[in-house]
Amino acid sequence: MQKHVVVIGAGFAGLAAVRELLDHPEVRLTLVDRHNYHLFVPLLYQVAIAGLEAPEIAHPARDVLRDHPDASFVLGEVRRIDREKHIVHVDDEPLPYDYLIVASGSQTNTLGVDGVVENATGLKSVADAMGIRDRILSACEEAAHLTDPDRVGSLLTFTIVGGGPTGVELAGALAEIRKKMLPRYYPEIDPNLYRVVLVDSSARIVSMLSEGSSAYAEKTLAGLGVELRLNTRISEVTPLGVRTEDGEFIDSLNTIWAAGVTGSPVDGLTETEAGNRVPTTPLLTLEGDSRVYVAGDVNGYVPPKQEKPYPQVAPMATQQGEHAAKNILRDIRGQKLKRFRYRDRGSMVTVGRGRAVAELGPVKITGFPAWFAWLAIHLLKLSGGRNRVLVLISWLHGYVTYDFAVRVLHRRHRFPRKEGTSENKEFEQVEE
Amino acid sequence: MQKHVVVIGAGFAGLAAVRELLDHPEVRLTLVDRHNYHLFVPLLYQVAIAGLEAPEIAHPARDVLRDHPDASFVLGEVRRIDREKHIVHVDDEPLPYDYLIVASGSQTNTLGVDGVVENATGLKSVADAMGIRDRILSACEEAAHLTDPDRVGSLLTFTIVGGGPTGVELAGALAEIRKKMLPRYYPEIDPNLYRVVLVDSSARIVSMLSEGSSAYAEKTLAGLGVELRLNTRISEVTPLGVRTEDGEFIDSLNTIWAAGVTGSPVDGLTETEAGNRVPTTPLLTLEGDSRVYVAGDVNGYVPPKQEKPYPQVAPMATQQGEHAAKNILRDIRGQKLKRFRYRDRGSMVTVGRGRAVAELGPVKITGFPAWFAWLAIHLLKLSGGRNRVLVLISWLHGYVTYDFAVRVLHRRHRFPRKEGTSENKEFEQVEE
Repeated sequence: MQKHVVVIGAGFAGLAAVRELLDHPEVRLTLVDRHNYHLFVPLLYQVAIAGLEAPEIAHPARDVLRDHPDASFVLGEVRRIDREKHIVHVDDEPLPYDYLIVASGSQTNTLGVDGVVENATGLKSVADAMGIRDRILSACEEAAHLTDPDRVGSLLTFTIVGGGPTGVELAGALAEIRKKMLPRYYPEIDPNLYRVVLVDSSARIVSMLSEGSSAYAEKTLAGLGVELRLNTRISEVTPLGVRTEDGEFIDSLNTIWAAGVTGSPVDGLTETEAGNRVPTTPLLTLEGDSRVYVAGDVNGYVPPKQEKPYPQVAPMATQQGEHAAKNILRDIRGQKLKRFRYRDRGSMVTVGRGRAVAELGPVKITGFPAWFAWLAIHLLKLSGGRNRVLVLISWLHGYVTYDFAVRVLHRRHRFPRKEGTSENKEFEQVEE
Repeated sequence: MQKHVVVIGAGFAGLAAVRELLDHPEVRLTLVDRHNYHLFVPLLYQVAIAGLEAPEIAHPARDVLRDHPDASFVLGEVRRIDREKHIVHVDDEPLPYDYLIVASGSQTNTLGVDGVVENATGLKSVADAMGIRDRILSACEEAAHLTDPDRVGSLLTFTIVGGGPTGVELAGALAEIRKKMLPRYYPEIDPNLYRVVLVDSSARIVSMLSEGSSAYAEKTLAGLGVELRLNTRISEVTPLGVRTEDGEFIDSLNTIWAAGVTGSPVDGLTETEAGNRVPTTPLLTLEGDSRVYVAGDVNGYVPPKQEKPYPQVAPMATQQGEHAAKNILRDIRGQKLKRFRYRDRGSMVTVGRGRAVAELGPVKITGFPAWFAWLAIHLLKLSGGRNRVLVLISWLHGYVTYDFAVRVLHRRHRFPRKEGTSENKEFEQVEE
């Protein structure tokens, strides 16, 4: 008799679980997500900087399930899980399960700082990325017809909070925009008024890498003109900029919050621990509930002799999703479940065009070879053959032409003004 | 001394004028549009049916002006024209001109029918196309989990009002979705509940073509399962469907209004005539104002011995834009202005995969050769080399795989319900 496995979330963990469970006659499978696609988040910053189109990194969930009559997809919000009755409530519809894999992922972590939700943009969704793209283009279009250097400066200042891979990659790409996009398409704009400020609370950026790699990334970003503010905490984000704990105010109409993520658990699981992550057994099941697995960013299992859970990165999520699925198959067959162990294959971060740092086990590489490896690995990991071809062409085109080709403004952003300043030009938001 | 030419609108007419005026040292040029791109409207229906990504048919206006220091772009709404002072008001900013080309295009013509604005979608903008795509995907996702055939039927009924090229091309493509997309990705849905209804008030569709071509198009659409309602006028569009003047009500949660366009003139021109189009001299200037030209869909010049203005199609707009620009150059040089004469090179309409009708002067072709010609001409006319490559790849991929690849739902559509029906599933709009 078939067992019904429900997978919540079409991210890396959920998709890995689905791929593991397909084609097993003992399993009927339902994948639930609030979006109808798997989003390849590591390339999302390239959508934000007009390098890629959003659908190129979004792979429809139903593509993965295609030709598998025992697999189905539900588009919806998971409201809560009833573990006594073994039911997931999707919108108002009950969905019974035999096994459940919760891979609901993570969301932007505001760190409790005032004004982040209202005045900063995260970089976790297609809407976030398209919003940043709209901001960049709106700011450039407005600045192109202004003469007041203060206003132009604040329109064209991008403050990125968080020096992890997302923040570093975005900062590098935004700095390339000054070098390549402004002179070509906005000759009216003085590029010296365009600033990229990268703020991090610790003493170095990309702190999961070695000190040498951090130093390389810092030097490379500085060479691109990125202003680094290390050991700096933000106390407040306002519509007009960010205030640091030292009391400095950075005039900046574009604040991007990349200071880490926090789990997105679903109602009905156990209490969460630090970082809003759900503790599990080493088998990835909930303590005392062997039908419910938790995988990916939302999993809070702390491995032996460690102080904190695994890093919230795509390889970990993929491995946990696969592992949870395999344990479910073992359970159905009456086999012994296995403990999860993370195989850390290393980290890599790209820093502008043609430069990256990569630490793959004992191997550390920097510069062009690391950048090339970064491209190759991301292309291979991308879901969907058509998307791979389109991304490859976009990259080749961008590499040859130095272009940011997807400069299509969907919804014009209206930037706030300082009180008391003259309104030398007033725009209305275009409802396209 | 340089003359400042302001071009309002980056459509076919405006872009043709700009291309003609670039590289003339006697001209300084400003292009104004509410969007930052030229949109290739003839392929917009393919964005709507998830065949192309929107940026593939949107060419940034600044790409065209690149490396021309005497040309600039202004993103904004034209509020009015002050012809006495020779000023265009863009948002609240005055923009003085020596010559003006008004190429402000056209908008959906509601024909005064009740409920069109509130309950139907046009197909004139990127937002329209992405809205239709979101509707198709939202309807399929909702229908996939419902059993009530009435509700599924109204979710999956697409009523297209207007049998011109836009309506016919969209109807054919929507019919292909039933054949190819539903069985592959939505095996839960009974394809017999999916309907495409094409309504036209006249006795035949694509009435600018010969009767033989109309008959071919009608036969082809019927073969694809499109329900044709000829000689049928719509009296009302409601949230739940359309009512015909005969009193029939078609249950349909998706009404697409393609019943023609009306000019979008700018305040400060002369009174408009039929179809909201602005009358001009044969030189394309406003009567009595030799500095102001009107070109494209908004131009209402009636040629000699004709009863109505030229057709509102891309080749006419392109020719008028070029002609207006050339007349301005002649005027600057003290040369005699020339009268505009439209060279009608024919029409072509695609009707589903591999089939089209084309009438190019005396040559009439149908079927695969016409379809191939349609593809080739649209690809050549598309603006931007990168876009041409991406569209070609998308078409090759679609042709080989029969796929509608851009199935990325941006904003879920919430469909209304009949009063008193049971709500067996309730969705909230996902704010992505």
